[in-house]
Amino acid sequence: MRAEVIAIGSELTSGQKLDTNSQWLSQRLGELGVDVRFHTTLADDLGQNVDVLRIARSRAQLVIVSGGLGPTQDDLTREALATMADVPLIEDEASLSALTAFFERRNRVMPPRNRVQALLPEGATPLPNRSGTAPGIWLESVGTVFAALPGVPGEMKTMFDEQLVPRLQGTERLGPVRVHRVINLFGRGESDFEAEALDLTARGREPEVGITASDATISFRITAEAADSQAALDATEPTARLIYERFGEWIVGEGDVDVVEALIQELEMHQATLAVAESCTGGMVAQRLTDHPGVSRVFLGGVVCYANQAKIDLLGLPPAVLAEHGAVSSEVAEAIAAGARDRFGATLGLGITGVAGPDGGTPEKPVGLVYLGLATRHGVEHRRLLLGADQSRPVIRSRAAKHAMNWARVVLNSEVRGHGPAVSR
Amino acid sequence: MRAEVIAIGSELTSGQKLDTNSQWLSQRLGELGVDVRFHTTLADDLGQNVDVLRIARSRAQLVIVSGGLGPTQDDLTREALATMADVPLIEDEASLSALTAFFERRNRVMPPRNRVQALLPEGATPLPNRSGTAPGIWLESVGTVFAALPGVPGEMKTMFDEQLVPRLQGTERLGPVRVHRVINLFGRGESDFEAEALDLTARGREPEVGITASDATISFRITAEAADSQAALDATEPTARLIYERFGEWIVGEGDVDVVEALIQELEMHQATLAVAESCTGGMVAQRLTDHPGVSRVFLGGVVCYANQAKIDLLGLPPAVLAEHGAVSSEVAEAIAAGARDRFGATLGLGITGVAGPDGGTPEKPVGLVYLGLATRHGVEHRRLLLGADQSRPVIRSRAAKHAMNWARVVLNSEVRGHGPAVSR
Repeated sequence: MRAEVIAIGSELTSGQKLDTNSQWLSQRLGELGVDVRFHTTLADDLGQNVDVLRIARSRAQLVIVSGGLGPTQDDLTREALATMADVPLIEDEASLSALTAFFERRNRVMPPRNRVQALLPEGATPLPNRSGTAPGIWLESVGTVFAALPGVPGEMKTMFDEQLVPRLQGTERLGPVRVHRVINLFGRGESDFEAEALDLTARGREPEVGITASDATISFRITAEAADSQAALDATEPTARLIYERFGEWIVGEGDVDVVEALIQELEMHQATLAVAESCTGGMVAQRLTDHPGVSRVFLGGVVCYANQAKIDLLGLPPAVLAEHGAVSSEVAEAIAAGARDRFGATLGLGITGVAGPDGGTPEKPVGLVYLGLATRHGVEHRRLLLGADQSRPVIRSRAAKHAMNWARVVLNSEVRGHGPAVSR
Repeated sequence: MRAEVIAIGSELTSGQKLDTNSQWLSQRLGELGVDVRFHTTLADDLGQNVDVLRIARSRAQLVIVSGGLGPTQDDLTREALATMADVPLIEDEASLSALTAFFERRNRVMPPRNRVQALLPEGATPLPNRSGTAPGIWLESVGTVFAALPGVPGEMKTMFDEQLVPRLQGTERLGPVRVHRVINLFGRGESDFEAEALDLTARGREPEVGITASDATISFRITAEAADSQAALDATEPTARLIYERFGEWIVGEGDVDVVEALIQELEMHQATLAVAESCTGGMVAQRLTDHPGVSRVFLGGVVCYANQAKIDLLGLPPAVLAEHGAVSSEVAEAIAAGARDRFGATLGLGITGVAGPDGGTPEKPVGLVYLGLATRHGVEHRRLLLGADQSRPVIRSRAAKHAMNWARVVLNSEVRGHGPAVSR
């Protein structure tokens, strides 16, 4: 079953408000086995509303509309649906009683203009609204089901779950359940992975595999359909296994597990602790780790050593090292990593220093040059990253933070496999 | 000039990702006098892409497409535009050189797949991409201008501002300029401000005033239209003056100036320096300050003292104070603030400790309880915040960070007015 989601309101097309209803509806519809192919957002204009509904009718079997059911002159969904279906608007008695009762419960007289909310296109069924005034509308036209819901997210969600889902299930129009399984990788570019996965991402493959990039994390997304969600999940398994075999060393985790969550898991698994010394990332690693409740078991804290004097005073960086090599150097990265490990008494110390830009780059030390240091009980190592002189400051900072966390994760992980430095303190 | 904004990607129609590009584009287009009437979001399907482009051509004079310009098989925008315009795709030499150069700068060989990114519909103009691989596309078809931009928000925004805006201004297609002037306030709730601004926010007022809330910052948004941007800006002035007179003490700044930028400005104005000690905010204050290049002049750094031992070892918190009052207490907030000021040698030291949740709350110290400490040369003070036990961890952390920064800002600001503690070290 192919669907279109329509959001109505000039505050959306003008960009004054962000439409989040369409995303929510698409997720829920996907779980029900409905294939959402289009979102349309349009301003409060009757003629354009009617045109958009007609286009939707021609390309979808289910159309969910949110917004435009209020009592004001801007609220045109009722009229647009009636015009599209070529039927008159008629007053629905049950909806009028419900409206009147809504105001009575609040000891208020119903304003006369709210009466229009009881109007329905002839042949439509009202969808009761438990939490607001506007009833929803269920209308079939030329083989397509239209469901109009309120624009207020809370009312929309309640009506969707309580009124629309049972009705859709009753029509036996719902298709097989669709499951998305997302496997996250880090450490190479999207096209590097894609080049080694052309057989998986080929059009028409079953199950379908897509590849997306977000903040340098690359995700394979396996989409499978089956009668129930367990069977759909099972159908993703052979493809997931192929991805694990081929890209195992780069895989961070599945679903919401990105580099941060994966590092926390590794630290917990090893009962290891981490401290950080952040110069160019300025607290970003610490902030992302502490987004997670309970991280205090494995994350002891950090020093944001933005000023050079702080690297000396708080992390024991020898001034001579700073003078000889400069703040952005492998020597300083190693020294502050060791300093963080030592001052916090942690199993692992991470140090990050670099040129985040946009200014401060030189030919020898361009914007995007970042040194990472990692201190373990076996000593301290460094890595050099070139994150791109044409990248923005937020991108360079974010990637430096992710690379640092991923390095610590990989080192902990290789410990399990018995090669690589031991990390127990 | 009527416009449609199109976002392409199955990850959007499925609800896996939220489309924020369309909102951003609509805001910017509105400021340029373009009337955005439609947003369409659609899956990665060639036939549907072509149909949607044709519909857009029939109802808009300007169509902005984001997404679908990458190197993978899912990326269909080039092909869809060519099919819609009924022209072949041809390789653009300048774009191919730019692509090759992009990879050379990174010392990488261009993967063969990326070569498709140099293809353009015949008659189209490439829009250079400073920050990524995909060039944009400018194409006119049957009187409608199509501009295809990358889906990655950073690349899309840069290309819009640098490439598209000058080109649109060159076509003289733009209408009257609409200016939004945004005045940001912090420290009270939206409804508190709104109750004292009903005359300003009344419908039909000229210029129009809206009120919005984002992450506890409340913004008045004055919208005015005129032939040029200076005249439109002038038209906002009397209303802006009213807002300054009425709410001056709460005003942080205008436009992009929120609490962080305002604090940096105050520090620079006083040639004062800041160091922070962050427990529950875990580096968020440091991270937000260091988002800004050049902040090292006024921000020396911080300690993320997530573990209690770190408060003692790195910030000199007396263990007895910790034992007697607990980590979340006014005494600890003051001690770590003083410790940060002292260890970094800063003019001001800020300390933050609290219960960010979702666990760890008690009847005496509920989730949302946060103590701030502020150390100056006159001594150290504290504040107690109750940020709401029903708020989420990210909200509590973010508000605690903002309140801390705003307190430092207000103290610096009151110094100018000659009452309040002197802050020079």
